[in-house]
Amino acid sequence: MNFEEFFASALVTLKDEGNYRHFAELERHRGTFPSATCHNGPGEVTIWCSNDYLGMGQNPKVLDAMHEALDRTGAGAGGTRNISGTTHDHVLLEAELADLHGKEAALLFTSGYVSNWAALGTLCARIPDLVVLSDALNHASLIEGIRYSRARKVIWKHNDVGDLEEKLRALPAEVPKLIVFESVYSMDGDIAPIAEICDLADQYGAMTYLDEVHGVGLYGPRGGGIAEREGLMDRLTVIEGTLGKAFGVVGGYIAASAALCDFVRSFASGFIFTTALPPAVAAGAAASVRHLKDSSLERTEHQKKVEEVRRKLDEIGLPHIDNPSHIIPVMVGDPVKCRYISDRLLEDHGIYIQPIGYPTVPKGTERLRITPSPVHSKADVKRLISALEALWTECQLARQPIAAQ
Amino acid sequence: MNFEEFFASALVTLKDEGNYRHFAELERHRGTFPSATCHNGPGEVTIWCSNDYLGMGQNPKVLDAMHEALDRTGAGAGGTRNISGTTHDHVLLEAELADLHGKEAALLFTSGYVSNWAALGTLCARIPDLVVLSDALNHASLIEGIRYSRARKVIWKHNDVGDLEEKLRALPAEVPKLIVFESVYSMDGDIAPIAEICDLADQYGAMTYLDEVHGVGLYGPRGGGIAEREGLMDRLTVIEGTLGKAFGVVGGYIAASAALCDFVRSFASGFIFTTALPPAVAAGAAASVRHLKDSSLERTEHQKKVEEVRRKLDEIGLPHIDNPSHIIPVMVGDPVKCRYISDRLLEDHGIYIQPIGYPTVPKGTERLRITPSPVHSKADVKRLISALEALWTECQLARQPIAAQ
Repeated sequence: MNFEEFFASALVTLKDEGNYRHFAELERHRGTFPSATCHNGPGEVTIWCSNDYLGMGQNPKVLDAMHEALDRTGAGAGGTRNISGTTHDHVLLEAELADLHGKEAALLFTSGYVSNWAALGTLCARIPDLVVLSDALNHASLIEGIRYSRARKVIWKHNDVGDLEEKLRALPAEVPKLIVFESVYSMDGDIAPIAEICDLADQYGAMTYLDEVHGVGLYGPRGGGIAEREGLMDRLTVIEGTLGKAFGVVGGYIAASAALCDFVRSFASGFIFTTALPPAVAAGAAASVRHLKDSSLERTEHQKKVEEVRRKLDEIGLPHIDNPSHIIPVMVGDPVKCRYISDRLLEDHGIYIQPIGYPTVPKGTERLRITPSPVHSKADVKRLISALEALWTECQLARQPIAAQ
Repeated sequence: MNFEEFFASALVTLKDEGNYRHFAELERHRGTFPSATCHNGPGEVTIWCSNDYLGMGQNPKVLDAMHEALDRTGAGAGGTRNISGTTHDHVLLEAELADLHGKEAALLFTSGYVSNWAALGTLCARIPDLVVLSDALNHASLIEGIRYSRARKVIWKHNDVGDLEEKLRALPAEVPKLIVFESVYSMDGDIAPIAEICDLADQYGAMTYLDEVHGVGLYGPRGGGIAEREGLMDRLTVIEGTLGKAFGVVGGYIAASAALCDFVRSFASGFIFTTALPPAVAAGAAASVRHLKDSSLERTEHQKKVEEVRRKLDEIGLPHIDNPSHIIPVMVGDPVKCRYISDRLLEDHGIYIQPIGYPTVPKGTERLRITPSPVHSKADVKRLISALEALWTECQLARQPIAAQ
C-alpha cells in the first residue's frame, strides 16, 4: 500500500467536498483583545469567534498569578500526578473548583476533552451493566468517552425530556443508569431543561453527568454555570467544566463526591498516565475562578453585549438562532456562501469569524457562530453589523422581517 | 444501585491490595530544582523521580519565553485550533519540531497521551484493513489509541525482532501494516532495536510509529532522540514526542510527512474538538527545543550524573536494571518494602522517589525508579546513596556482589 498516496487522496476528497479546514494563524494582543494580528491573513483583525468569552485570558489577576507561579516554581510539572507531578497549585485549584460547584471534591484533567473522555470512559466501563442515556447532540468528547467504555448507550432526542423518560421507562429498574447531557449546547446555544432531567433521574434512580463547559464562569452568582443559576448543582452527580473558555486558560475538570472523584482518579488511564498541567496554568486558572466568584461585572457586561449584537442583527433582519445563551449563530445555510462571507469579513473588514459547517453542524445549517464579549467595543459592534449587512446584500441572502420597528 | 457505596467499596479494595495511590503534594522551587517543598510530607525534599530530566523546567530561556508570551498575548488560546485557537506561537513550535526530526511537518496536541491516542486512533481506524503490530510493553496511550481505532492488533514480544518478523511474515503481503513501538521504555529503561525494526518495516512494507517521549531532548546531537543518535529519523514514518519531559513544559506532537500530519489534523477528534495549548506554553516549549538543539551540555552532564549514580549503587551492591538509558530502576521486588523505603526516604531523609508497583509494572518487580538530572549535586547523590544503603540493610534486602573492586 502506498500510504502517502492514501493520505493525499483523502485530503483531496476533503477539499473537493469543501470540508478542508484552513486555520487562521493569530497573535492576540494582551490588553487589547479582541484585536489580534492574523499572520496568514490581512494583518490586524478583530476576533468575533473566541471562546475566551469574557476576555479573562488577559485579566491582570490571571496573568499575575501565572507570572508569579513561573517565577516561583518554573515551567512544567515534571511528571504525572502520581510520579512527582502533583503540585500545590493543582491541589489549590481543585479545592477552588469543588467549592465553585458546592461539591466535596474536584479532579483536574489536561483538557475538557480529556475530562469527559477519561471520566465517562472510566465510570461507564467500571460500573457493571451501566446503561448510558446520552443526549443526541452531545459533544464529541462525551461521545468518545462513552464509546471507549463499551457500555450500552441509549440516545435520547436532543433536550427532549419526554423522549428521555420513555427511554428510562423502557429500561429495567435494577439496571444502573447514567444520564449524560450539556447545559449550553455550543453550536445552537440552546440550554437543557436541567431541573426536569434531574426529576427524571431521581424518579428512575439514575446518575447525572452535566457538561457545563459553555456555562462555567458565565452564569450563576459565582460563575458556577447554568446549574448554579437555577439552584440545581446539588442535584447533579457530576458537573464537568473547562478552564479553557470563560476562565481563559486551559484544562478541564469534574466536580462530584469525594468517592467518585477518587474512583476516577484511581482508574482513569487518561488521568493517570499523562503529565500534569504546568503549575502556572493551574495558578492562572485558580485566579480566574476566584475572580469570577467575586465579580459579576464581566457576566453582566457580557450579557449586555450579547443583547446589543442580537438587537442590531434583528434591526437589519439577519437570521440568527433565538436562544437563551450567549452564543449567536447567524445562519447562512450554504457552505460556499458561508466560507465566502467569512473570507470577505477577514480580508476586507478585518473581522475574524470562522465559518462552521459539516460535520460540526448538519449540512444546510452552515453558520457564523458569533461570540460577543465584554471587551468588544461599541465601535467593534458597529463595524461587525455594517460588514455583515453589506455581505448579506452582496450574497443575496434572505432576511427576516425587520424586527423592533 | 447505590453508586456511592460502589465507589467507596472499589476504593477499599484498592487500599486492601496496596494499590491505592497517594500523591505527594509538591512545590518546586525555580532555580533550586530538584529541591521542592512537600506540603503533605516533611517539608523540604529532593526530587529523584521527575521526568523533567534535564531541569529545563527552570531554564531561564524557557521561562523568559513564557513570560514574554504571557505579556504579549495573554493566558489562553481561546479556542480550538480551527476556531480562533491557532496562534503564531503554535505555528512556530510546529516548525521547530518538524526541523528537530527532519520531517516535513509536525502536529501539536495538548499532551503526549493525546498525541498517541488521537494520531494512532485516526491512522489505525482510517487506513482500510490496517493491521497494527504493537510491542508488548507499549505505553497506555499507545494501547488506548489502537484500541480506539478497533483495527486488528497483533502484539509482538517486547523488543524481539525475531518475533516481530514472524508476526509480519504471517500476514498477507497486501495488508497495510503499522509497527508501533517506543525508543526508551520508561519503566525498565531499555531501548528498542530501531534499525532492525526499520529493516523489517522496509522488507514487509509496513509503516512505523516510534514513541520517543523518553528520548527527545536527551539523545542525538540536537536532541532529536534515540533515532537521531542512530541516524534513523528518515526511516521512520511517524516520530511522536512530548514537550512535558526533557523539554520541561507540557504537550505532545507527531512529526511526519506533510500529508500524514494534515490527514491527522483533519480527522482526529482529539485534535479537532479541544482547546489549543496556551501560546505561552508553546513559546516555552519552542525555546526549550531550540536551546537543546544548540546545547549538548545538559545531555552530557545528564549522562555523567546517571553514570555516577549507577556506579555508586554498584559500589554498595544495590540491584538495578542494567540498561543503556538514563532511567535507573532500583529493584525492591516487594510492594510493602518498596512503599516502606519510599516513605522512610521521604520522612527521614527528605528524598522523594515515588514507589512503582502493580499494575504499572508486574508484581514482584516493585521498584524505585530513579531519574538523575544534571541539576542533582554531588551532595544530593551522596545523601541518596547513604539513605538507600541504610534502608537496604534495615529491610534485609539482598545485594549484588560488590562490583568494580
